[in-house]
Amino acid sequence: MAPLPRIFLVPGGDRRLRLGHPWVYANEIRMDAEARAVAAGSPAAVHRVDGKPLGVGTFNPHCLIAFRLFARDPAAALDRAFLARRLERALRLRQRLFARPFYRLVHGEADGLPGLVVDRFDDVVCLQAGTAGMEALLPAVLDALEEILRPRAVVLRNDGAARRLEGLEPYVRVARGAVDGPVEVAEGDVRFLADPLEGQKTGWFFDQRDNRAFMAGLSRGGRMLDVYCYGGGFALAAAAAGATEVLAVDSSAPALDLARRAARLNGLDGRCTFLGGKAFEELERLAGERFRVVAADPPAFVKSRKDLRAGLKGYRKLARLAAGLVEPGGFLFVASCSHNVEAALFADEVARGVATAGRAGRVIRAAGAAPDHPVHPFLPESAYLKTLVLELD
Amino acid sequence: MAPLPRIFLVPGGDRRLRLGHPWVYANEIRMDAEARAVAAGSPAAVHRVDGKPLGVGTFNPHCLIAFRLFARDPAAALDRAFLARRLERALRLRQRLFARPFYRLVHGEADGLPGLVVDRFDDVVCLQAGTAGMEALLPAVLDALEEILRPRAVVLRNDGAARRLEGLEPYVRVARGAVDGPVEVAEGDVRFLADPLEGQKTGWFFDQRDNRAFMAGLSRGGRMLDVYCYGGGFALAAAAAGATEVLAVDSSAPALDLARRAARLNGLDGRCTFLGGKAFEELERLAGERFRVVAADPPAFVKSRKDLRAGLKGYRKLARLAAGLVEPGGFLFVASCSHNVEAALFADEVARGVATAGRAGRVIRAAGAAPDHPVHPFLPESAYLKTLVLELD
Repeated sequence: MAPLPRIFLVPGGDRRLRLGHPWVYANEIRMDAEARAVAAGSPAAVHRVDGKPLGVGTFNPHCLIAFRLFARDPAAALDRAFLARRLERALRLRQRLFARPFYRLVHGEADGLPGLVVDRFDDVVCLQAGTAGMEALLPAVLDALEEILRPRAVVLRNDGAARRLEGLEPYVRVARGAVDGPVEVAEGDVRFLADPLEGQKTGWFFDQRDNRAFMAGLSRGGRMLDVYCYGGGFALAAAAAGATEVLAVDSSAPALDLARRAARLNGLDGRCTFLGGKAFEELERLAGERFRVVAADPPAFVKSRKDLRAGLKGYRKLARLAAGLVEPGGFLFVASCSHNVEAALFADEVARGVATAGRAGRVIRAAGAAPDHPVHPFLPESAYLKTLVLELD
Repeated sequence: MAPLPRIFLVPGGDRRLRLGHPWVYANEIRMDAEARAVAAGSPAAVHRVDGKPLGVGTFNPHCLIAFRLFARDPAAALDRAFLARRLERALRLRQRLFARPFYRLVHGEADGLPGLVVDRFDDVVCLQAGTAGMEALLPAVLDALEEILRPRAVVLRNDGAARRLEGLEPYVRVARGAVDGPVEVAEGDVRFLADPLEGQKTGWFFDQRDNRAFMAGLSRGGRMLDVYCYGGGFALAAAAAGATEVLAVDSSAPALDLARRAARLNGLDGRCTFLGGKAFEELERLAGERFRVVAADPPAFVKSRKDLRAGLKGYRKLARLAAGLVEPGGFLFVASCSHNVEAALFADEVARGVATAGRAGRVIRAAGAAPDHPVHPFLPESAYLKTLVLELD
């Protein structure tokens, strides 16, 4: 193999890398003509200003996060064997965590595969490459996946918004095998349906697995409302756990279609009503009704820093409207998947929204994504999902 | 009943109370001769500067947290019936969360009973009053508990350090019935032993219930090390879940005695070794050994703000020493129950400690106390317990 392009840090530019961080920002790199000439996403070797090798990764001279470290061993090659070892390590963790093959198999930096997300639906896997570096490695990743999992089908859902920052075009295609419609997701006692080709993100939100189970337990014997229900994750888990009646709302007709089909698949359609509508409007329309559990898992209200103020107001309003529908002694679940909203800020907005609704209560659970969404120890800010459960008086 | 003493806030002193907070600080209260003359811990009615009633609670003119709100209804009386309703509400939540009567029944402000902690071991309950206000209400609390639970025995573990701030003397006594030695705690598949009279705090740490279960699942088939094992919570849960060999260390001989007895009770003594020793010394002595799981749940390293620097160093060192004993692909659990250490700060020290040990990995769980330790929505800082689980390469 040809030697990797070499990039050099500015003096002191290795400080965070040395500490354990996996990223180098553009301003920490000596951006000379040689560095700027490296093709976006090329594997590269990173060096201290004095020439000391610090590791290998991928480099995109046009990005703020210019270098992403894959390995500290300067001799590491980012080839199929290397990627296979990373995939095997990620697989072993999930096999220790879960009895069945439905999970996020790879979660980017935390799994030592910067820019890559892999969700596994048994023998169908759905990949997302979020960086030019990972896009360039995809052929080798596909070979490594083939070696380890022998999947029936592989979908590339390379239409995430983050790709634009890396200069990547969006596309979706089936890279291996064939996918004929939705796939099943086994979770707890329920079989859900996910559409890796047409659904949101990879088709399913594994990150809420534990939260769905927790809320399902609290729904037993009561009415349950699921706003932003998507494929019916919270709704069907609650119905299966013994909720007497479930109302689920989403604005997406295809999502509701999958949710309805999944309800029938589990024999739960008699207790579940799926309703097309906008969350805020439906919450207002339902005023006066009471539910044991109201779960609201909205899309990110704060997609960029400039939306922060409006987004926080949105979370507060959501908490206010949802809290008003919780029966005394019932439970409210709210979530934020906005990277740009810190947990403390989100909790404060929820507390204020609940108080504005004239309700008091207590936070019985503050959590995040399930453990198949690990966090790099030096990227705590990548823990995007914040969830709260309150009991209301 | 005689009318309650009235206290008045300074102009604007009602801002946080109005928002939903349950506390009024001394500097928000008009501390005239009348207010200063109120007996420490007396029930009192709080009023805005213009006389508008804001609610009732307990008042201690000698404390920074001078007023603790129990109810916003100015007509509420803090009597047995009121306390019984609060206990019933707390009980209903726990009964929805847990199948068996072993849990924290009351967790202070979050349960609308400021200053009170009640842990339940089936028909034995252990109370802690942390404020002068709650100390004064204890006779009524005991009557209300009798009405609702009819416990076989009630222990008052009023020897917590926080009482000094309220001018209260420490004492321990059996208030109702009799306690003849340790009580059993049923958790998962294991029966533990707790000593409400002589053990630490109330005798058992229910707050780690979910974390014990999570780590137990990861211990199956491997060696497990539990430092600061106390009554063997993490150790016996791991052994019961199928750890091949468990080593548990604590510096307390009585705690180890209970842990050993519990191991025998569960038929797990063949796989468990309990060792008297200091955590840091034993971790250093074990250098070179490897465990699938290392769990370290130390007492608070930061008891007051002035200990912050030394305490953070302690957490970093603990993470470093413990990480060094985790086998590749194994798991590290570390916790901090220090009120004065924020989650982000703790996570940073742990990340650095692990990196200093030359280990890399990922955070697969960041959690806190179990849901029977709720948090008041406007006192997020009272979420004292921070826990992290890392998989290490």
